[in-house]
Amino acid sequence: MTVKRILIVSGTHGNEINPIWAVKQFNKENNKLKNGIEYEYIIGNPMAYEKGCRYIDADLNRSFKKIKNSDQDKNSFYEINRANVLVDQFGSKGSKPCQIAIDLHTTTSNMGTSIVMYGRRNKDFCLAALLQNKFGLPIYLHEKDATQTGFLVEAWPCGLVLEIGAVAQNFYDRTIIDRFLIIISSLREEISKLENNLIELPKELVVHVHQGSIDYPRDEKGDIDGLIHPERINQDWKMIKKGDPLFIDSQGIIHKYEEDQWIWPVFIGEVAYKEKKIAMSYTMKEVISSKKQWVQELESL
Amino acid sequence: MTVKRILIVSGTHGNEINPIWAVKQFNKENNKLKNGIEYEYIIGNPMAYEKGCRYIDADLNRSFKKIKNSDQDKNSFYEINRANVLVDQFGSKGSKPCQIAIDLHTTTSNMGTSIVMYGRRNKDFCLAALLQNKFGLPIYLHEKDATQTGFLVEAWPCGLVLEIGAVAQNFYDRTIIDRFLIIISSLREEISKLENNLIELPKELVVHVHQGSIDYPRDEKGDIDGLIHPERINQDWKMIKKGDPLFIDSQGIIHKYEEDQWIWPVFIGEVAYKEKKIAMSYTMKEVISSKKQWVQELESL
Repeated sequence: MTVKRILIVSGTHGNEINPIWAVKQFNKENNKLKNGIEYEYIIGNPMAYEKGCRYIDADLNRSFKKIKNSDQDKNSFYEINRANVLVDQFGSKGSKPCQIAIDLHTTTSNMGTSIVMYGRRNKDFCLAALLQNKFGLPIYLHEKDATQTGFLVEAWPCGLVLEIGAVAQNFYDRTIIDRFLIIISSLREEISKLENNLIELPKELVVHVHQGSIDYPRDEKGDIDGLIHPERINQDWKMIKKGDPLFIDSQGIIHKYEEDQWIWPVFIGEVAYKEKKIAMSYTMKEVISSKKQWVQELESL
Repeated sequence: MTVKRILIVSGTHGNEINPIWAVKQFNKENNKLKNGIEYEYIIGNPMAYEKGCRYIDADLNRSFKKIKNSDQDKNSFYEINRANVLVDQFGSKGSKPCQIAIDLHTTTSNMGTSIVMYGRRNKDFCLAALLQNKFGLPIYLHEKDATQTGFLVEAWPCGLVLEIGAVAQNFYDRTIIDRFLIIISSLREEISKLENNLIELPKELVVHVHQGSIDYPRDEKGDIDGLIHPERINQDWKMIKKGDPLFIDSQGIIHKYEEDQWIWPVFIGEVAYKEKKIAMSYTMKEVISSKKQWVQELESL
């Protein structure tokens, strides 16, 4: 086991301020080398945090695909440069190399405490399985989405997003902060067990696999012309079947889910996704059997 | 009585979207001349609304003081120009003159449905008294605050802000929309009575008069280092006395209210006011006797 340095990023979106506060608390404790593990706590997008907005020029958590394409200085986006800086400094081959990245986010949707994974990497499955086993956390496996790429944790050999909501942008909420403190502490405990070969994986993992996204009803000008239906708002992770209401438009007409396939929606009404034309994303459930290889790969990082 | 045209502004702050939706609903009904009254519904800051932010260059609802100072084109702020356009068009001497302006806002604070007045204009008192009498709405009289001036409604002979919360920025909330629909309908009814000389004022009016604002605890770098105390958050309009907790800082230290004077806080934890260094404003209660003159002045508009 050679894992030594873990990167904990808060404020990748500048208006998600509760994890920044949580980490601030945490950072006052002993983060120095302990049992061969060292933690590095950073703010992902400090300029956006200062301005109280999600980002300056582009979503930082979609900006990691362009790394090393910007050598010609063609790209002047703050976030593209920031992504480069973070990888140069904290990437696995950086000046202060980290092997695992944990990216802390909040959502205005009623997701509770959840895990977001991008793709099916064995090391990520291992970490996610440990956390799900401990807390029963739901996992959103965001994969095969051509419209959304370049996520931060993908630039590290192993990484997860911890996503907690519902909480408004820029609003300090003590209960949300407490949830971050608990999950970061637990994550540290699990990683410490890994170092000491004390890991016990559950037999299986339940994931909600991304299938697609649904936009709001829109008027002829392209403006949003529908609210999330009262029966749907705040009902993240709850199954929808044919005929269930999705939206109610400005004329009072109810827009229903019309497909036969049962789906499980997530990020219902997330404020930041309106610009991405997403009223909610939807998933299907999948059970994945654990593999010894997951632990082996994580230990050999 | 010569009141003819009422201006209803939503989206003066671009990320306060529920009144925009409410007015959209309303605008589909008959707003044309009726009983000698005509309504004009507009979006205050359309560019900020499109971008999902409070403002582009400056707070539009603090930009009305500079009107007519910008003749030399010295000021390139979007909101200063927008303020000029609105007054040139809908001001009492504008091309489509309106005599009353109602400005619809939301807050992330738990203010409920409330009225904000700026200064002590007889006409404003009349309108506010009618609404308080009907619904028991609390009134925040924001006056004598040198740090905050240039409010939209001050540029019209008569005007009020309707402020409803708590609701997150950019988040559609059906219950908030419904509250706007109810209050706009009632306002229209009261104004219609005015036209028909059917006004009955209550004997008195209770107002919460602005006294000052309290900033967050801050660290040596000037960053916020305290959350609103759990006993204080969401407790807008509730009296505070000496020794009551205000904040809890990152070291767990509780910051208390230390003055002898009882105060009533408003806009507790309002997200948009962090940049103004306001964690909450505070008021004192005052009872004001109604005057016939209020009605006379409003009728003679």
